Amino acid sequence: MRAGYSLAEIAAHLGAELCGDGELRVTGLSTLQDAGPGQLAFLANEKYASQLRSSDAAAVIIAAKHLPECVSDPVSGELQSGRFKGAVLILDNPYLGYAQISKWFDRSPPLIPSVHGSAVIADSATIGADVVIAANVVVEDHAIIGSGCYLGAGSYIGARSHIGDDSRISPNVSIYHDVMIGRHVTIHSGSVIGADGFGFAPDGSGKWQKIYQIGGVDIGDNVEIGACTTVDRGALGDTRIGNGVIIDNHVQIAHNVVIGDNCALAAYSGLAGSATLGNNCILAGDACVVGHVHVCDNVQVTARGLVTKSITEPGSYSSGTPLMKSRDWRKNAVRITQLDSIARRLKTLEKKT
Amino acid sequence: MRAGYSLAEIAAHLGAELCGDGELRVTGLSTLQDAGPGQLAFLANEKYASQLRSSDAAAVIIAAKHLPECVSDPVSGELQSGRFKGAVLILDNPYLGYAQISKWFDRSPPLIPSVHGSAVIADSATIGADVVIAANVVVEDHAIIGSGCYLGAGSYIGARSHIGDDSRISPNVSIYHDVMIGRHVTIHSGSVIGADGFGFAPDGSGKWQKIYQIGGVDIGDNVEIGACTTVDRGALGDTRIGNGVIIDNHVQIAHNVVIGDNCALAAYSGLAGSATLGNNCILAGDACVVGHVHVCDNVQVTARGLVTKSITEPGSYSSGTPLMKSRDWRKNAVRITQLDSIARRLKTLEKKT
Amino acid sequence: MRAGYSLAEIAAHLGAELCGDGELRVTGLSTLQDAGPGQLAFLANEKYASQLRSSDAAAVIIAAKHLPECVSDPVSGELQSGRFKGAVLILDNPYLGYAQISKWFDRSPPLIPSVHGSAVIADSATIGADVVIAANVVVEDHAIIGSGCYLGAGSYIGARSHIGDDSRISPNVSIYHDVMIGRHVTIHSGSVIGADGFGFAPDGSGKWQKIYQIGGVDIGDNVEIGACTTVDRGALGDTRIGNGVIIDNHVQIAHNVVIGDNCALAAYSGLAGSATLGNNCILAGDACVVGHVHVCDNVQVTARGLVTKSITEPGSYSSGTPLMKSRDWRKNAVRITQLDSIARRLKTLEKKT
Repeated sequence: MRAGYSLAEIAAHLGAELCGDGELRVTGLSTLQDAGPGQLAFLANEKYASQLRSSDAAAVIIAAKHLPECVSDPVSGELQSGRFKGAVLILDNPYLGYAQISKWFDRSPPLIPSVHGSAVIADSATIGADVVIAANVVVEDHAIIGSGCYLGAGSYIGARSHIGDDSRISPNVSIYHDVMIGRHVTIHSGSVIGADGFGFAPDGSGKWQKIYQIGGVDIGDNVEIGACTTVDRGALGDTRIGNGVIIDNHVQIAHNVVIGDNCALAAYSGLAGSATLGNNCILAGDACVVGHVHVCDNVQVTARGLVTKSITEPGSYSSGTPLMKSRDWRKNAVRITQLDSIARRLKTLEKKT
Repeated sequence: MRAGYSLAEIAAHLGAELCGDGELRVTGLSTLQDAGPGQLAFLANEKYASQLRSSDAAAVIIAAKHLPECVSDPVSGELQSGRFKGAVLILDNPYLGYAQISKWFDRSPPLIPSVHGSAVIADSATIGADVVIAANVVVEDHAIIGSGCYLGAGSYIGARSHIGDDSRISPNVSIYHDVMIGRHVTIHSGSVIGADGFGFAPDGSGKWQKIYQIGGVDIGDNVEIGACTTVDRGALGDTRIGNGVIIDNHVQIAHNVVIGDNCALAAYSGLAGSATLGNNCILAGDACVVGHVHVCDNVQVTARGLVTKSITEPGSYSSGTPLMKSRDWRKNAVRITQLDSIARRLKTLEKKT
Repeated sequence: MRAGYSLAEIAAHLGAELCGDGELRVTGLSTLQDAGPGQLAFLANEKYASQLRSSDAAAVIIAAKHLPECVSDPVSGELQSGRFKGAVLILDNPYLGYAQISKWFDRSPPLIPSVHGSAVIADSATIGADVVIAANVVVEDHAIIGSGCYLGAGSYIGARSHIGDDSRISPNVSIYHDVMIGRHVTIHSGSVIGADGFGFAPDGSGKWQKIYQIGGVDIGDNVEIGACTTVDRGALGDTRIGNGVIIDNHVQIAHNVVIGDNCALAAYSGLAGSATLGNNCILAGDACVVGHVHVCDNVQVTARGLVTKSITEPGSYSSGTPLMKSRDWRKNAVRITQLDSIARRLKTLEKKT
């Protein structure tokens, strides 16, 4: 077997127009700046366009408009000095092309179907074909593991939970009972699905009465969940995550949250109890939604934005203050505590003049 | 055994006045909106009062004032058109009633006392009666596990740590050495109790000298700790959490923090080193307290509030800015950096006019 | 063996000047306030200076300027009433001295080199001398574990990953494949190193195309990583953490972040994808850096500061608003949404007068 992939294979997979030698072997992916012989790079961000000419990549994925900066003359294929010296793959969306080819260069160890002798699997559990169940996995009563699934070492699957086909549960993930997970779902290490929602009622004497969380969790297909992320079970009814949702690390999804399809939740973002998020929404890092608030489709919240009221109009929303030198910040910040007074004094002045 | 519970049983448990058929069987809990035959709902939030009349719940827990909206005529018990058609349980605090009955409908798998063969328990550990010790649990030297405890799969109990009676440690929880945990405590998966506090001294050459954290952790009774939450051990002396404290997911409790009784800490809230929280305080989501700051009893901090100075007066505190459309936010945010100048200019104008 | 250490030993280890009985045995460390017989305390923060005179500590580490408040007359060693009654160790930096001696009083259980029978270690893995490999550890193919390492119960080391000599991996830590970790590194429980970065490309139809994360992680020597912290693998090339970096709990280090030497990252701080941090930087609690932003050496960001643009000048930076009583906050916060208008109206007034 020859190492890597031919440019012709790659071009065919991506549906890219190829300028250069289709027989050339590509053995790795890299950035324009770091790429060396045998490596394929891409130009997706105009900020890095200046790196194209000096890149040592063997080939590059670009949009057609950057062709003049490349050595391969589109007609003659001749080398031209001062331009990119490698082969060129032309795509409307080079970033998507890079994403689509990235799997070919994934270094994850191969998974060979097997069930490790130390795994503890309940007799009543149903295990699909071609699964990889690693060491110290625990699968409880009546759980159902779909075919082609991977359960990493030390992961825990609670009673009656279902993992859809071809899903990947990384080491040390904890999935409680009655959690439904779709197909092609990935969950990274340290994440916890189906722990109790934070539900307590004041008992009138200053103490808290626990509300048992009798709902479950329902996660769609093609969902990716990062590391150390939590999705709590519902208090009554399920916490629900739609199809194609991507979730980063340290995300908090509280009980009875409902998230539409294809949303993206970056690190530290979160939704408090019973909040809902429409389809195709993006929560940037640390953007949070308070409880019982509804966010419509196609909303983006920028980093650290805090949504305290329902949003009914698509678009981008923000909160927070700019970063300043601390000595400037101290002077300005104290004025925030005087803002209402400042506004009133301004109004008084306006009336006077 | 008949399914569910009779309304008479439920009314008796809650001390509720019952209007309707006490023999009726209730098989589940639900919201007013989602409830179907055989289900008990409740009206705790006036926002949902309009759902009462159309609810298909078999029975509902309400405050007396909502009785006129219910079908059961309080005197004759006769059905009345356009009103709620099921039975009624009357309580002063319907939400508390719902909480108190929720345990009866909990779907957690039953725990049968047993010690799994794969558990690794030190000879010097003391294990109480009727414990459930699941697969791959590790209990280190001189640890003490109280009677009726549950240690979930893959959980780790360090040397000399104590777990009080009837406590529940979920799968993949890590408890370091010398951690004292009270009775009826619940800790959810992924949480870590007793890791080193973040203590380092600058060594004068730009490097950090570790301060070994030789204190422990002391957690009271009836505490609930969510998933992926951390409680660090003390540097000198213990980190302490009082009785009846409820703690959500992703919470950070640093070394030598002291938390009073019955506090509630929502997701992402946290206290930095040596901060203290009085009794009956509430930190909403992402509300944080910086180090060495003291918060008195009965303080509430709203979502994302940052406590940078000690609070000596009970009440509600906030910080942060409102959410705006991003284009509006950009215009306003830049003005925050000019606030001190704005305030000074206003003062100048006031003097002039 | 006699308990504790003699003051003479301690003074020699710290290079401290000793006033008092060098034969005195010290059996523990404590704060000035809590110290009892046999315990050594220290005065590092002027805020606690008043506690010196009444402390029951057997000995105290102080700076020379506090000597007059101590009982030990520097010349005669005679007791003087109303002053500290114990022995004195004099150091320029008492806090550093406390840090340096703290290890002697560490209560962590001793680690006796051994490999637990339940550990699952690939034949192709390389295991150094004198390691402690606890129960249920999994070490995958071609991993390399340095000498003197400790791998806590349930920890997972992925294929081809290296753990440098004398490193400590706590229970239930997950380390993915191709992660390089230096010497003398500590990683606390629940942390995850090498999970996939959050990389997805919009596919033009509203869905997300995963970008396989084919880079790794490279962590230097003498790094400490807290609990429930995540360090993602690179998309292309490695995520890199320098030497001597200290990282608290719940920290997020995204793909392709580069962190210089001796940085300190407090709880909830984080860096988004491809952000870089120079040497000797400090991110206080919840201080975050957005993606593709560069922070130069010797920058401090205060608690909850959000860095949205590159910082090229050393110093301290802040953002956020002060805490107020909620009723005051509501009045002031709404004015933030009017700030641009306020500024314009002020300018109009200035022109008029």
